[in-house]
Amino acid sequence: MLETIFNHKSIRKYKNKPIEEEITKSIIEAGIRASNTGNMQAYSIIVTKNATQKEKLWEQHFRQDMVRQAPLILTFCADLNRFNKWCKLRDCKPAYNNFLWFYTASIDAVIAAQNVAIAAESYNLGICYLGTTNYNADKIIEILELPEGVVPVTTLVVGYPDETPNLTDRLPSEAVVHYEKYNDFSEKNINTIYKEIEESEFTKQLIKENETDNLAQIFTEKRYIEKNNIHFSKTLIEVIKKQGFM
Amino acid sequence: MLETIFNHKSIRKYKNKPIEEEITKSIIEAGIRASNTGNMQAYSIIVTKNATQKEKLWEQHFRQDMVRQAPLILTFCADLNRFNKWCKLRDCKPAYNNFLWFYTASIDAVIAAQNVAIAAESYNLGICYLGTTNYNADKIIEILELPEGVVPVTTLVVGYPDETPNLTDRLPSEAVVHYEKYNDFSEKNINTIYKEIEESEFTKQLIKENETDNLAQIFTEKRYIEKNNIHFSKTLIEVIKKQGFM
Repeated sequence: MLETIFNHKSIRKYKNKPIEEEITKSIIEAGIRASNTGNMQAYSIIVTKNATQKEKLWEQHFRQDMVRQAPLILTFCADLNRFNKWCKLRDCKPAYNNFLWFYTASIDAVIAAQNVAIAAESYNLGICYLGTTNYNADKIIEILELPEGVVPVTTLVVGYPDETPNLTDRLPSEAVVHYEKYNDFSEKNINTIYKEIEESEFTKQLIKENETDNLAQIFTEKRYIEKNNIHFSKTLIEVIKKQGFM
Repeated sequence: MLETIFNHKSIRKYKNKPIEEEITKSIIEAGIRASNTGNMQAYSIIVTKNATQKEKLWEQHFRQDMVRQAPLILTFCADLNRFNKWCKLRDCKPAYNNFLWFYTASIDAVIAAQNVAIAAESYNLGICYLGTTNYNADKIIEILELPEGVVPVTTLVVGYPDETPNLTDRLPSEAVVHYEKYNDFSEKNINTIYKEIEESEFTKQLIKENETDNLAQIFTEKRYIEKNNIHFSKTLIEVIKKQGFM
């Protein structure tokens, strides 16, 4: 169990091999067993195996090869649609059309997703999360025909790995873990925390390929740049409103 | 592994027994191994063991006994503070002060939290998520002294269980899982999906205790009522703005 967690690597190349039906069922069931707010199960899981649907999702996930390659794409959604319909049919007035419930249901969707991820890895499947889900939520809503009250939160690509990447480096734990109170960072702390990752051969290679001065610049000027961040923030807020949560 | 996932039960009563130091370390490390956006590790984990700090958190978590009882409280935060500081020290301009990055970092915080939850359960510890984190985020920020760029997303209560609750019922999988496209629910579908849970003895008892006509009313009129939902939505949005994300 812990071994699976400690050996996690995101997989971006997949074998052309379908996942056994019982395994697919089991990993989805693992998601459903996860903790969720008030046992309302305010999330849904959209299963994509069909090649035409995968092709459409691939377009929205920045045409990352793995979306076409992998046999299984799971889109986890914040979903109050079912719950609202149930309340109305029982003559109750649901009041879950607000930001709190969008956020609550998003958290529950992610908890379910990570259960699925770990269950998949325990079957020797590989997984990768797609952050692009939030960038093109509007288009994904169209493709998956998500009604009001439903917003895609995250996506898991699942399949048999066709690569064996190394374990990714992490910052030393003092970068992430704080005791009792937040221990804010001095310049010296920051330098210490980032020292190993900045001096690694992997980083040096990355800086060369990206033609930047340092590692931070790869993030701010290449990967997650201001213009896109502002644009995708705006479209994400519009999606949340359009789906009835604000 | 799968057994741990399939046997998950939220624990709300804990033994007065501390968690071994190596186990605490191991479950937090499990969180840090989780997938995260661009390996930016845009989250932080605040560890609370101190009785005075626990007392303060207990107040904000609606005085739920378990917050005082359990030896370990972990608050998972969306955190761009460290990353922003690093970027600035490297003469880069971070543009992560927007809603997209609040939401992205929130997702990463939850993925880490669920890894910690499963790791804890694999050591026979019990866990419970606290949704109250989002209700009183402003007060929790004060208690934990979270700087700009940091917002608490979810909290795990962790400790040795002092109760053995039954497995919680879940809706049949067709309530949650959709194939290729969202299969929206007719009145008949809703009735079928909720039939078992509505007719259970547990639900009948709950309705009696709550003095309502049906199960849905317990949610809309007792547990998650309109007035509170609107109030907590407003304070949550204010917190996100105040912490520099909108």
